[in-house]
Amino acid sequence: MTTSGNFDLEKITSLLEGLEETIIFKLIDRAQFRLNPAVYMPGQSGFAGAAQQSLFSLRLRSQEEMDARFGRFCVAEERPFCARLPRPRRTAALPPTGLCIEDINAVNLSGKILSTYLDLVPRICRKGDDGHYGSSVEHDVYALQAIARRIHYGALYVAESKFLHDRSRYTRLILEKDVKGLISLLTRPGVEDRIMVRIRDKVDFAQANVNRTSRHVIDSGVVFRFYRAAVIPLTKRGEVLYLLNRTLDQQ
Amino acid sequence: MTTSGNFDLEKITSLLEGLEETIIFKLIDRAQFRLNPAVYMPGQSGFAGAAQQSLFSLRLRSQEEMDARFGRFCVAEERPFCARLPRPRRTAALPPTGLCIEDINAVNLSGKILSTYLDLVPRICRKGDDGHYGSSVEHDVYALQAIARRIHYGALYVAESKFLHDRSRYTRLILEKDVKGLISLLTRPGVEDRIMVRIRDKVDFAQANVNRTSRHVIDSGVVFRFYRAAVIPLTKRGEVLYLLNRTLDQQ
Repeated sequence: MTTSGNFDLEKITSLLEGLEETIIFKLIDRAQFRLNPAVYMPGQSGFAGAAQQSLFSLRLRSQEEMDARFGRFCVAEERPFCARLPRPRRTAALPPTGLCIEDINAVNLSGKILSTYLDLVPRICRKGDDGHYGSSVEHDVYALQAIARRIHYGALYVAESKFLHDRSRYTRLILEKDVKGLISLLTRPGVEDRIMVRIRDKVDFAQANVNRTSRHVIDSGVVFRFYRAAVIPLTKRGEVLYLLNRTLDQQ
Repeated sequence: MTTSGNFDLEKITSLLEGLEETIIFKLIDRAQFRLNPAVYMPGQSGFAGAAQQSLFSLRLRSQEEMDARFGRFCVAEERPFCARLPRPRRTAALPPTGLCIEDINAVNLSGKILSTYLDLVPRICRKGDDGHYGSSVEHDVYALQAIARRIHYGALYVAESKFLHDRSRYTRLILEKDVKGLISLLTRPGVEDRIMVRIRDKVDFAQANVNRTSRHVIDSGVVFRFYRAAVIPLTKRGEVLYLLNRTLDQQ
């Protein structure tokens, strides 16, 4: 089975573009609940014996333990936030990805994604406490997973695609461990600007006809800046990590 | 603490209206994956020793077991799909609802919600198999939970609100177990029509500017008919169940 179709840059960018609405929908749904700061505080979870953990971190671990059993993290672009997860209980025949990397976890940006997401939440949610703690952390986890999938998918597949299109230049930069050179070769500023403007428009379109007495509307500029400050640079950092870890003896 | 604010019909309908986008977003997100019929077939889950269950039903149970530990089903409008769920491990002080019913599970429409949802999936998803089994069942569960929350919230709070506004007529019909009379007194056809048209418009608005090469667009008429054939009648059936089980010796 050939995997070259996995690295058609047009297909990859179309898939990444399709994930934008998924991320936006999940952020908007999270923002229907107040910030509920207690859910991020250790010792406030209401779980017996969980003094060191917040409700949010308990939920994230619990979700990932379930997901791990269902085999989520066997998929290259699904990198977990938690360590020491259970082994999959499901055997699924996944097609080969064509990615050339020995340890896929060398490209795990989840820690950084988590911290930028937690900075984002107070910018999309109204202040205060509405008591909907369970729903808040549930939607936090959904949004986080959608963002992480987008970043890791972009990092892995865009990097390999670009490598295949300019093998000799990338190989030289990789052998020289020239991070700056790699970033410069990977960067397409016009494309990045287009993505951010599109994101802003999508957030506005998705909420254009909303009844503001029943739905909280999020600021499209906030999501624009989140893409600019987090999604795009983290994707690029992931591309560099992938390339630095790419096995060069394979094709 | 007074609970009368919980039964302000305007507030309730505003909350129900706000849940519409949540349901729509989750249906659209599910529809980004193919139908993947194998996920609904027993014995195809890939889980060892789960010959009788589909991947979908394993995921639904697994999600609800986690949710049960987090205390989800302590909330009146969160009625589970599965039986024999674990007890909550979280103690959360929930405010009194003001609902007058001894066994909240007397108003559990989850079985019917599940079957109507499974009929809906082939109408929003493209045929075929894309291999994204985990994502498909994950989004099935999110959509199902959003729909069930909407129906149960409507059933419980709308019914109690209407009861409080016309106590003597409802009491007589309840004592006579007059289901037909209750349905007739509960029904506001103009309101139902308005909801369905609004739903259709929201589905169209949410997808109006979408790039159809990167996102699958769902048919707003399908969601319109799902509301007409399932969400609205099931909510009403739940209202009747609530009223027939309402304790009449309380306020």
